[in-house]
Amino acid sequence: MDKNKIIIFDTTLRDGEQSPGASMNTEEKIQIALQLERLGVDVMEAGFAAASPGDFDAINQIAKQVESIKVASLSRALERDIKAAADAIAPAKNRRIHTFIATSPIHMEHKLKMKPDEVIKRAVEAVQYAKSFVDDVEFSCEDAGRSDISFLKEICDAVVNAGAKTLNLPDTVGFRLPYEIADMVRIMSEYIGDRAIISVHNHNDLGLAVANTLASIKAGARQVECTINGLGERAGNAALEEIVMAIKTRSDEFSGLYTDIVTKEIYATSRLVASITGIEPQPNKAIVGKNAFAHESGIHQDGVLKCAQTYEIIKAEDIGAEKNALVLGKHSGRHAFKDKLVNLGFDLNDEEVNEAFSKFKLLCDKKKEIFDDDIRALVSDEIIKIPEIYTIETLSTSSCNSGHSSAAISIKFNGEIISDAALGNGTADAIFKVIDRISKVAGELKDYKVSAVSQGKDALAKVTVKVAFGSSEPPFIGHGLDIDTMMASAKAYVSALNSYLSMKK
Amino acid sequence: MDKNKIIIFDTTLRDGEQSPGASMNTEEKIQIALQLERLGVDVMEAGFAAASPGDFDAINQIAKQVESIKVASLSRALERDIKAAADAIAPAKNRRIHTFIATSPIHMEHKLKMKPDEVIKRAVEAVQYAKSFVDDVEFSCEDAGRSDISFLKEICDAVVNAGAKTLNLPDTVGFRLPYEIADMVRIMSEYIGDRAIISVHNHNDLGLAVANTLASIKAGARQVECTINGLGERAGNAALEEIVMAIKTRSDEFSGLYTDIVTKEIYATSRLVASITGIEPQPNKAIVGKNAFAHESGIHQDGVLKCAQTYEIIKAEDIGAEKNALVLGKHSGRHAFKDKLVNLGFDLNDEEVNEAFSKFKLLCDKKKEIFDDDIRALVSDEIIKIPEIYTIETLSTSSCNSGHSSAAISIKFNGEIISDAALGNGTADAIFKVIDRISKVAGELKDYKVSAVSQGKDALAKVTVKVAFGSSEPPFIGHGLDIDTMMASAKAYVSALNSYLSMKK
Repeated sequence: MDKNKIIIFDTTLRDGEQSPGASMNTEEKIQIALQLERLGVDVMEAGFAAASPGDFDAINQIAKQVESIKVASLSRALERDIKAAADAIAPAKNRRIHTFIATSPIHMEHKLKMKPDEVIKRAVEAVQYAKSFVDDVEFSCEDAGRSDISFLKEICDAVVNAGAKTLNLPDTVGFRLPYEIADMVRIMSEYIGDRAIISVHNHNDLGLAVANTLASIKAGARQVECTINGLGERAGNAALEEIVMAIKTRSDEFSGLYTDIVTKEIYATSRLVASITGIEPQPNKAIVGKNAFAHESGIHQDGVLKCAQTYEIIKAEDIGAEKNALVLGKHSGRHAFKDKLVNLGFDLNDEEVNEAFSKFKLLCDKKKEIFDDDIRALVSDEIIKIPEIYTIETLSTSSCNSGHSSAAISIKFNGEIISDAALGNGTADAIFKVIDRISKVAGELKDYKVSAVSQGKDALAKVTVKVAFGSSEPPFIGHGLDIDTMMASAKAYVSALNSYLSMKK
Repeated sequence: MDKNKIIIFDTTLRDGEQSPGASMNTEEKIQIALQLERLGVDVMEAGFAAASPGDFDAINQIAKQVESIKVASLSRALERDIKAAADAIAPAKNRRIHTFIATSPIHMEHKLKMKPDEVIKRAVEAVQYAKSFVDDVEFSCEDAGRSDISFLKEICDAVVNAGAKTLNLPDTVGFRLPYEIADMVRIMSEYIGDRAIISVHNHNDLGLAVANTLASIKAGARQVECTINGLGERAGNAALEEIVMAIKTRSDEFSGLYTDIVTKEIYATSRLVASITGIEPQPNKAIVGKNAFAHESGIHQDGVLKCAQTYEIIKAEDIGAEKNALVLGKHSGRHAFKDKLVNLGFDLNDEEVNEAFSKFKLLCDKKKEIFDDDIRALVSDEIIKIPEIYTIETLSTSSCNSGHSSAAISIKFNGEIISDAALGNGTADAIFKVIDRISKVAGELKDYKVSAVSQGKDALAKVTVKVAFGSSEPPFIGHGLDIDTMMASAKAYVSALNSYLSMKK
């Protein structure tokens, strides 16, 4: 084990998916997993196998499809959780079971209702059972940030003796300041020595997740748990891209320490996760925000022209975010288009290139200038393959603010065309209602967002909807991309419906 | 001067406005300024008076309207900048001039092209000149984060002798780690002692602005510069709400230190700034993100029900973000409506309440359930008064994906109704084109965003557009709120047009 290597443990697909509204389907998770592999993540927590059959299936599919990345599943310190985790990750070349139990007085007393001794016993049994399936077992002391250090030592001793190779110390409620986390990590890594790797998992409730993670690394942590775009429960987790770029940019202070992340894949990964979850990083988000590399004030622009380093410490190219250049148009051929895809980091087979190219040609007819972001949106839309149970053939809408809004739609279903119309309060409402009428499934719209993919009145509209079908289901996300906002809305709603129906099968 | 008080210096209206796309008009800035006063901010940097006549006017109007809050203008260390700053803030009861010059080798050599001695001379002259207008002068060492500490001591000695009362040490490029900033602040505050207040201004390029600010406070800084939602150049500034809530939540570690911020006004302030700038905090943003207080996983929900503190360190009520409850409906009267407004923190006069109430009643006819966020959107829309040069009377649209999209609109202008129609690539495009046709002003759409204000197919749509009119202008922001996304789009576009035309006058 290289003592200078920082192991990047990505939990976008587990803790990130716990962001309210970020639920993903199996196909979407696989796309993210493959991109995490390109990004050079060491360990990927692909889900929580015992949480639901959907979670189990996603982990299992990912385990089959990834090459070298280590696949982990979270599990409580319970036999059935661990068994589910082991079964789900079984097909992976590299596997880890990550089991946890809470170690803080408040969690042990109020949530677990267990004595400290019982907690240790349960933890040891869990690690031993996990070891019967895999060699690589990680143990987490949930709420370590509020646990007694002497108890942490005691339980860590016990689970290391039982075979745990990584000890994770999460600040589960995001309560700690950097020097406090550093103190805990320093004490624990001196105590544990070479017996296990110390890991951290910091939540962002006070906006300190990244600072706490960096302080932990200086104090001896050699694994960090993090997510793309800082997704996660509540205010989220430490953002992978910020940790990695801080270590790289400040190599003078993190002397010798490094990660194996391919930083040029950061931007593409961030865009993919944003697009799939519908959770867009704010423009002023560090590293991957839309404005992270933009200089607005005249003084700054002047400085950058004279000498870039006056105001720039990271180059956009370092994370693969080239300028959103004007790139292709009506007369661009298949070859130029394919080059552009490779350049943007997409790895598509011939059939996928052809499909994307025909969409690109259709777009050229409607839109004069095609930007990098248009291509990204087009292709991301293409690679997430939701089974097309219902397909929109034609849509016409009409609306008048002093009268009715209506939508008429023709939808293909089982080879047959069904047409109908409906009224609504506004055009979007009419569209959603006519789709419900045809599918005979009532959807409840939980969220609706539209953004322009690039500039101009004729920019592509990207619509994200979250729709609950049936009462107990989590909402389904749908995306739609079209030059017409209303057509994009219809596509998004139908794609959520198709997701729901294909999962229900 | 109370040594335990942390002075909150808000620069949302200056550095925050430098976020690409966040430009605001005077009326919008005044609304934010009044809210910052309710929030209990100590000093407000209202702009950069010499930057443009618009900036000057906004600072000047704000200086006339606020009560007790101290109003500052930024100025380079140049006579004309300082004169403009002094004139702009003149009407304010409490005033400050904030002047700066760069002190790092890279900035002095490449940007300023000045020798260190000349920089000190210029700084001293600037402070002396500023003192001829106001007693309270702040001096900033731009790029202090990369400046030599001995030079910082030298220039700070000189400007303190010239009368500067606050010394600000910005990490202009967001390059430093918390312990580095803390070292700089510790050395400087020990060196300066009681002669001046040490201030920090941390940028967020590595995601560390808040951590750096908190570390500075522990090291002796007694003023912190920050913005609402962390807005600012590139990856932004330290977020006011995160700093304030960290100090409050971790009072055990910040023993005795306090701010005068009314934390219950944090959420309302964040919403107002997001709504005006069109820059929405990401859902996983600490403190003010939509998900900051949401618990998604079953384990967490279970824990919170058993004992809230298992997973909650801050209550939503502490920042004035009560649950987005179902509140009012068709049968609610004016009294209940007014109570709700007070409860949400709005302070409207009778006429404004009446106008908002009629909008509310119109909305009730179209939408069954009215949520807190609907009321917030309705009233925020009401209080930002853009002069209504053009007003939409009727809009009808029609679209068919296999054929044309068209929009027909009637607009009132100078008491006269003008009607016309236009085709477009999609409905929104047709709407924007017919408005251009009527106004004879060609707008270039820079950004277009739609979000649902609350849940349901018939949720209010909030549209934000950024439109450039003419070539040299910065883009104008327009907002539109309507139950129909397309009508909301038309309203947003016309509101940007009205902003442009009224500023042009």
